[in-house]
Amino acid sequence: MKTLKIIKIGGHIIDSPKLLTEFLEQYAQLAAPKILIHGGGKTASTLAENLGIPVKMDQGRRITDEEMLKVTTMVYAGLLNKHIVATLQGAQCNAIGLTGADANCIEAQKRPVTDIDYGFAGDITKVNTQLILSLLEQQLSPVFCAVTHDKNGQLLNTNADTVAAAIASSLSAEFDVMLYYCFEKKGVLKDLHDEGSLLETLCLDDFTSLQQEGIIASGMIPKLHNCFEALTHGVTAVKIGIPAMLFSNIPHTTVQL
Amino acid sequence: MKTLKIIKIGGHIIDSPKLLTEFLEQYAQLAAPKILIHGGGKTASTLAENLGIPVKMDQGRRITDEEMLKVTTMVYAGLLNKHIVATLQGAQCNAIGLTGADANCIEAQKRPVTDIDYGFAGDITKVNTQLILSLLEQQLSPVFCAVTHDKNGQLLNTNADTVAAAIASSLSAEFDVMLYYCFEKKGVLKDLHDEGSLLETLCLDDFTSLQQEGIIASGMIPKLHNCFEALTHGVTAVKIGIPAMLFSNIPHTTVQL
Repeated sequence: MKTLKIIKIGGHIIDSPKLLTEFLEQYAQLAAPKILIHGGGKTASTLAENLGIPVKMDQGRRITDEEMLKVTTMVYAGLLNKHIVATLQGAQCNAIGLTGADANCIEAQKRPVTDIDYGFAGDITKVNTQLILSLLEQQLSPVFCAVTHDKNGQLLNTNADTVAAAIASSLSAEFDVMLYYCFEKKGVLKDLHDEGSLLETLCLDDFTSLQQEGIIASGMIPKLHNCFEALTHGVTAVKIGIPAMLFSNIPHTTVQL
Repeated sequence: MKTLKIIKIGGHIIDSPKLLTEFLEQYAQLAAPKILIHGGGKTASTLAENLGIPVKMDQGRRITDEEMLKVTTMVYAGLLNKHIVATLQGAQCNAIGLTGADANCIEAQKRPVTDIDYGFAGDITKVNTQLILSLLEQQLSPVFCAVTHDKNGQLLNTNADTVAAAIASSLSAEFDVMLYYCFEKKGVLKDLHDEGSLLETLCLDDFTSLQQEGIIASGMIPKLHNCFEALTHGVTAVKIGIPAMLFSNIPHTTVQL
């Protein structure tokens, strides 16, 4: 099978114009087929603050009320997605920007209210690969932002890591899918403040132990859940690290079952 | 040849949630193939005001500085385009939202500075129909907003009427293209305050005379220029009126060469 690279960028990379431009210049050179997924939470929070809309979070997860959904839709699907697409087009990469609502690529359901009401947060129920496959066949490079819909007229804010894992899983029947989570750290660190504590490989058993010991915590836990989900659903390889791992032999974390 | 309907919505329709929802419910029922183009100037101006960004206009044309380009990109490509796509998806219309940067559909150049510097305003140089034709073949309904790019990394704010005319012209070799400009008036009126003064047909000679007499003025002049441009480039028919003209036999203006 042909290899498909699926790359999620987040963290400081998407929120720093300089790091983003550097990354996109390199991404444009990467051999197709490839798919990019991006977040942009900090930029969304900044716009919300400028508009006087309160930014509400619960344990690092955004609570998306109606006003915040407008903000995330504007920032993710408008400002960032189209900036990325235009930049890639300028670097001779034939990019096309998409949300999950476009061509009904990604269906989700509004997260059920339990102790916490996350508002218009979407949990993915289905990825429809027909258009994505057609675009890849036409040598186009899809760029997805973290917006989905419920197929009933409602847009939903969705975790970008989860979008990446869901798209990767859905295409694993057609491709050898390599899934890369790129951010500002070299990978999963045993000590967040020590890049030397990088775990070069991480399997599910290790993850369980390290989580129990409290060594892996906060935002890394849902990210790793996404990694294992993708591997369980047939994704060939999952890697976490700085973007340079895509282009050179640089240490990173390889996640394994 | 197969008929393709290209519909541009602007004016109060795009800026009023109620009118927009009503229109989209009807649009969803319209037989494919079809393409929707939308503006959203008032919503963009409102966001700019809320952010303390000055709204600059010259004779009804927006001056797009760097901050305003961010605003129009957020509102057109994000907020409005994705709201429209999700609403159509909810009404069983398989819509896909696009800017001119996506898949390099519409190339433009930054308007040269003469007496006035319009900033990041784009004049269309080329429509690339390959992706649009592929989407129509796949029974998808493209929804374009008024954002293009220069193929060198720069997004550009572009008049939505012109986007509609350019897309219509570019597809006239493949389809019998019917181009509809929908807004809140019944069509071209000799007296803006009297719906009874509707011109049911308007040819180029009449337009020239009426323009000289000062009867057709302001925003209607560039709109009609777009209409004649489209007809000159092979578009089969161009109509101006309220959205109901699409679905029933209601008076409107038919523009003819």
